[in-house]
Parts: sequence; C-alpha cells; structure tokens
Amino acid sequence: MNLKEKIRVIDDFPSKGISFKDITTLLKDAKALNECIKQMAEKFKDLEVDLVVGPESRGFIFATPLAYLLGTGFVPVRKPGKLPAETVKYEYELEYGSDSLEIHKDAIKPNQKVLIIDDLLATGGTMIAAAKLVEELGGDVVGLGFLIELEDLKGREKLNNYRVESLIKY
Amino acid sequence: MNLKEKIRVIDDFPSKGISFKDITTLLKDAKALNECIKQMAEKFKDLEVDLVVGPESRGFIFATPLAYLLGTGFVPVRKPGKLPAETVKYEYELEYGSDSLEIHKDAIKPNQKVLIIDDLLATGGTMIAAAKLVEELGGDVVGLGFLIELEDLKGREKLNNYRVESLIKY
Repeated sequence: MNLKEKIRVIDDFPSKGISFKDITTLLKDAKALNECIKQMAEKFKDLEVDLVVGPESRGFIFATPLAYLLGTGFVPVRKPGKLPAETVKYEYELEYGSDSLEIHKDAIKPNQKVLIIDDLLATGGTMIAAAKLVEELGGDVVGLGFLIELEDLKGREKLNNYRVESLIKY
Repeated sequence: MNLKEKIRVIDDFPSKGISFKDITTLLKDAKALNECIKQMAEKFKDLEVDLVVGPESRGFIFATPLAYLLGTGFVPVRKPGKLPAETVKYEYELEYGSDSLEIHKDAIKPNQKVLIIDDLLATGGTMIAAAKLVEELGGDVVGLGFLIELEDLKGREKLNNYRVESLIKY
C-alpha cells in the first residue's frame, strides 16, 4: 500500500505558503491506519524498547498503538500545566518566541530504552525537546519514529545522534 | 489485574477541591496498558464498528489502539482551528463560559457505525459534543467508551440515549 497517497495536502494552512500534510485522510482509512502502525512497529522491533513516549497531541495518535504492539508502556510529553504530578520542563525556541514541554519526573527509570514517536518531522524542535526530557530522567533514547518527514527542513540533521525512521517523505 | 490500583489520585489538581485521576501511572505500565486496551476492545467487539472517534487530546491515547484492534479507521475531534479542511463545529456550555469542538466534514459517511472513546466520563459535556458532531455528519453512534467514570457527576444520565461502557468507576 502507498501510504503517501492517503495523505491530503492542504495549501496555506495554518498560514500562507505552508502546505499542510493532513493525516486525517490516512487515519480514517482502516487499512492504511493498520498498515502504518505495523510498519512503524516493524522498524523498531529489534530494539527491545521499554517505553514509548509521544508528544501532545498528534504524537499520542501513533505512540499508544506502537506501545501496544511492542508490548511496552506509554508516556505522554505534554504542554505546561497539563501533567498533575511533579514534572521536568524543557523550553525551546520557535521562530517567534518560545515554547515548552513537560514530562512527569517519575515517568522513566534510569537506563530504560525509550522510543519517541510523533506524526511529523519538520525542523525537529519538538523531538529534541522530548529527547532531552527523556535523557534528563536517565532514559536511553534508542529511536525516533515519524509518520512523515519534510526532508527540505533538515530536521534529521538536528537529530543525528539518534536513529531516525520515517514512513513517508516529502 | 486491578486497573484501578494503577491510577494515581492527585488532590487539588487542577484546582482546589478536585481529586484528579492521573492515568499516566497506568499508561506507563506495559501490562496495565495492554490489559485496558484489550478490555475496552472486548466490550465493543460485537458491534461491528466502522470508525473509532476520539476527542483531543487524551481521547487520542485510547481511540487509536482501539481502532487498530477493532480493525477500523480513527477520526479525531479537535479544538477549533486545528483541523485543516472544512469542519463542522459544536459549541457547549461550561461552568464558566463555553468551549467548542470540531470534526472534518468528510470524516464520516452516512450510516457508518461509530464508537467514541475518551479517557474520562465526568459531566459528559465533551462526549455529548462529540456525539452531536458524529450525528450531524450522518454517523450512527453505537457506543461510548471510557477508561474512568466519575459516577457522582452523573454523566451517564446525560448519555442515556447511548450504550456507555467504562472500565474503572469512582
């Protein structure tokens, strides 16, 4: 199955000049969803992953089924104020201003092998933040998985300390 | 396995007097996550579901693995401005002010059997909004599934037109 054909490209969303990759057309297609979750799991099944981490909110869509298939737990990385217990926070720069992500302090044990999953690799900012949070807790980031990679934005270069896998490239 | 024991209750979050049910302690436990996804799927496997819908963002955590196990597609219901194509919107009242949710207009075909999954049944407001959106598109809401139900808040009464299932009750 050609998963890329299931993605809908919407011009000028969320702002002028951006060609948004709409994954909802893939997600609603039972066969395509099944196939993409299986393909992601296949790419990481040799790693003996202990935990799958996913950033809010589209990362959740793929991270939990991956955790299910790989037989691991799932840990959410969230925007500030959403996680109820003690957290660590990572702040990162955006084109204008900054953003931050949090993880529960007790979410990961030292040396656990962690796979981080998100829908889209663009500039890599969100994924770096998620990886730093995992490492701050002593976790070992063994892989980063994406449904879509925007190659022109060179996020992969920023992530060159890690094993990076993506299913669909633009 | 007693899934309820895996939930962590945090007092006075997000505000004074609220006992927040923290699901992250269940999610990070591989066996508990596996068990709760299987139990949810078991409750709805007789329904011949066509699509699983999940509201942003904790609904995503359970809705996609359910879609995977039931062999269906997944459709996200999101906060305004997040979905890139044409949407329908449902506005609902909160204690102070209002909130709204959107779904893509082409997400559901008439008469498709739709299961809606969320993490928590409290007053039922979010779930009513999601069900109305599905019905506006002609979908047939065949079931509503929750990980946790707060019985004192009587959300189930508001949802009495639907089949409601929950795994953990407080």
